[in-house]
Amino acid sequence: MINQRMYELGNEPSAIRELFAYGLSRKAEIGAENVFDFSLGNPSVAAPDAVKKAALELLEKPSQEVHGYTPAQGAPGVRAAIAASLNRRFDTSYTADNLYMTVGAAASISIAINAIVTPGDEFIVIAPYFPEYRVWIENAGGICVEAPARMGSFQLDIEALEDALTERTKAVIVNSPNNPTGAVYPECDLVELANTLRRKQDEYGHPIYLISDEPYREIVYGDTKVAFIPTLFENTLVCYSYSKSLSLPGERIGYVLVPPAAADAAKVYAAVCGAGRALGYVCAPTLFQHVIEKCVDEPCDVASYQENRDALYAGLTKLGYECVAPQGAFYLWMRALEPDAKAFTERAKGHELLVVPSDSFGVQGWVRIGYCVERSVIDGALPAFAALMHEYQAPTL
Amino acid sequence: MINQRMYELGNEPSAIRELFAYGLSRKAEIGAENVFDFSLGNPSVAAPDAVKKAALELLEKPSQEVHGYTPAQGAPGVRAAIAASLNRRFDTSYTADNLYMTVGAAASISIAINAIVTPGDEFIVIAPYFPEYRVWIENAGGICVEAPARMGSFQLDIEALEDALTERTKAVIVNSPNNPTGAVYPECDLVELANTLRRKQDEYGHPIYLISDEPYREIVYGDTKVAFIPTLFENTLVCYSYSKSLSLPGERIGYVLVPPAAADAAKVYAAVCGAGRALGYVCAPTLFQHVIEKCVDEPCDVASYQENRDALYAGLTKLGYECVAPQGAFYLWMRALEPDAKAFTERAKGHELLVVPSDSFGVQGWVRIGYCVERSVIDGALPAFAALMHEYQAPTL
Repeated sequence: MINQRMYELGNEPSAIRELFAYGLSRKAEIGAENVFDFSLGNPSVAAPDAVKKAALELLEKPSQEVHGYTPAQGAPGVRAAIAASLNRRFDTSYTADNLYMTVGAAASISIAINAIVTPGDEFIVIAPYFPEYRVWIENAGGICVEAPARMGSFQLDIEALEDALTERTKAVIVNSPNNPTGAVYPECDLVELANTLRRKQDEYGHPIYLISDEPYREIVYGDTKVAFIPTLFENTLVCYSYSKSLSLPGERIGYVLVPPAAADAAKVYAAVCGAGRALGYVCAPTLFQHVIEKCVDEPCDVASYQENRDALYAGLTKLGYECVAPQGAFYLWMRALEPDAKAFTERAKGHELLVVPSDSFGVQGWVRIGYCVERSVIDGALPAFAALMHEYQAPTL
Repeated sequence: MINQRMYELGNEPSAIRELFAYGLSRKAEIGAENVFDFSLGNPSVAAPDAVKKAALELLEKPSQEVHGYTPAQGAPGVRAAIAASLNRRFDTSYTADNLYMTVGAAASISIAINAIVTPGDEFIVIAPYFPEYRVWIENAGGICVEAPARMGSFQLDIEALEDALTERTKAVIVNSPNNPTGAVYPECDLVELANTLRRKQDEYGHPIYLISDEPYREIVYGDTKVAFIPTLFENTLVCYSYSKSLSLPGERIGYVLVPPAAADAAKVYAAVCGAGRALGYVCAPTLFQHVIEKCVDEPCDVASYQENRDALYAGLTKLGYECVAPQGAFYLWMRALEPDAKAFTERAKGHELLVVPSDSFGVQGWVRIGYCVERSVIDGALPAFAALMHEYQAPTL
């Protein structure tokens, strides 16, 4: 009598949620300092002071101005400020009318998919991938097709992607810097991707969109460069969120960018507005729209994530773990010490280590370690990772 | 190549949006004080001081605490505070686990519909009705069935509703206090509705849900009483929003209440969680979840709406207009002076009066006057309404 699919989605066990709940109860049991919880992607860095300053200033304005409805696309001044910031950084020429403000990246991606899907359309995701992609694609009536990343480096595998492309392909979703692997796709690979897509567009006689999910765009390490994908491939829809760059995950604020050069751009933008309407979005939260307007050029505080990354990557590789060197985001992707990643994460729990098995992301044999944590968690965890390695190496196993 | 339905929804002319845009340009042209804009439902009353105080206090807390993710259902403390407030007011015994926090009423209703719909299910709306109901029902795969309210009073017409009920009826959506008519359904009528639904449930052998859309629950005048519907009919899902009662329409904060007495309550609640997930909602905005926790018993400032209502209703009826006396919400429902409400609202524009034709709400011949405006707008508008009446009475027409 109810919607069975929604019931199953609501009831579905989620490794990440279960680990998080386990962590809470375990911390209550043995003390938070004794549990090394790497399960979540909740930023450990505080929001910049500028966010608080902006919010305090805004709250002094008339209530109707800061808490009232904005147009469905978002306040024009907010969108103009974001367009100007993108133009300064990426040498583009966007306007407010190319942007649609959303309730965070999940809304951005869900709306973008709904805007372009027609029945039977295929959306390609690159495994390992954020598991909600499949939920949003299937809920919109699309088909989720997995193409593997290159095993080992977890970079783009253009050949594998080409094998996955068909006449029914509506879009490819890319996420660089990547959750869960920490990989950042170099510009040369993205150019090759763009060329492949253009060739396939010609062959099939219709556009293929690239949905670029880029909440980690600003979180990269060393001299890693993040290419701005719409400048490489015209049919790119950017789905952004301020959750990670400004440490505002709970405030649900982001955007969809429909570049004017994209195929059918005006129609796609209208369909984005329609999809937002159909899904029950009215406008993005007004106060935080205006906070973003004031903080649009605020730098992301990457330093403490970088310290965590350096300590964790050095510590784990020294212990003999096989890790992908994270170039961006705040996840370290590590090979499990047995083929069954779930079994491995269960044994890790015995050492109070909470890490997410790669099965959640559509591949086998790896784990995601979210290092958006206090530094003390990493320092405490390394001896536990050593003991875990020792356990696997012990001859009695 | 894009989703045609989403494109049409995004491109669809909306009388309200068009009037609002016309009003903005007209105000720029002849001065804001010369345009009498009754087109919107944006609260004119400021948010209570307690909202600002709560937000300021929260912003002094650690950023991760006030801006971090909450569980998808909402922060447990927030939900517990809302449950306790409902229990105090309505003598119920809800818990945090009966509540699911949402990004406002639109999200609440969209999620509730998606949670219970199965293909071909019918959802009954009572005309005149908020036009987005149809959008959300159809997007979820349901069928929108209109049952008329009693013409003249715009109260529930139980016979007409009974005629609309079929074996395929999954739910009836009610909205009292009502947008657009200002009607409030008396308890005796709701009891009759409940009895009818129970009889039909027995006949069809399955539950029929009542989706109670009640953002105006606190905005009523004089000795009008708003019954709390779940205490009258067990299969009621409450969709609430703080947009109107706390004047926070842009902040997108509300909830779905699934009472434990509802049929399949645990399954419906899980499906609500699943629907939120499938539509791309992650959690309701965290800061405003916590603002609500602190303001859960804050009274709604009804006084200035009441003054507006009294002045407008008295003024218009004195001029000879036929009006439904508004018992709640902040809309006055008035018969147009010709059968074609659109033509009437066009002629009203000639007197700088911006009112919404009833065609937008699924009925003919009436207009909605949103009196959530400064008092000066009403005082200025009455002579214009007099001139409009005079124009229709002039023999040369």
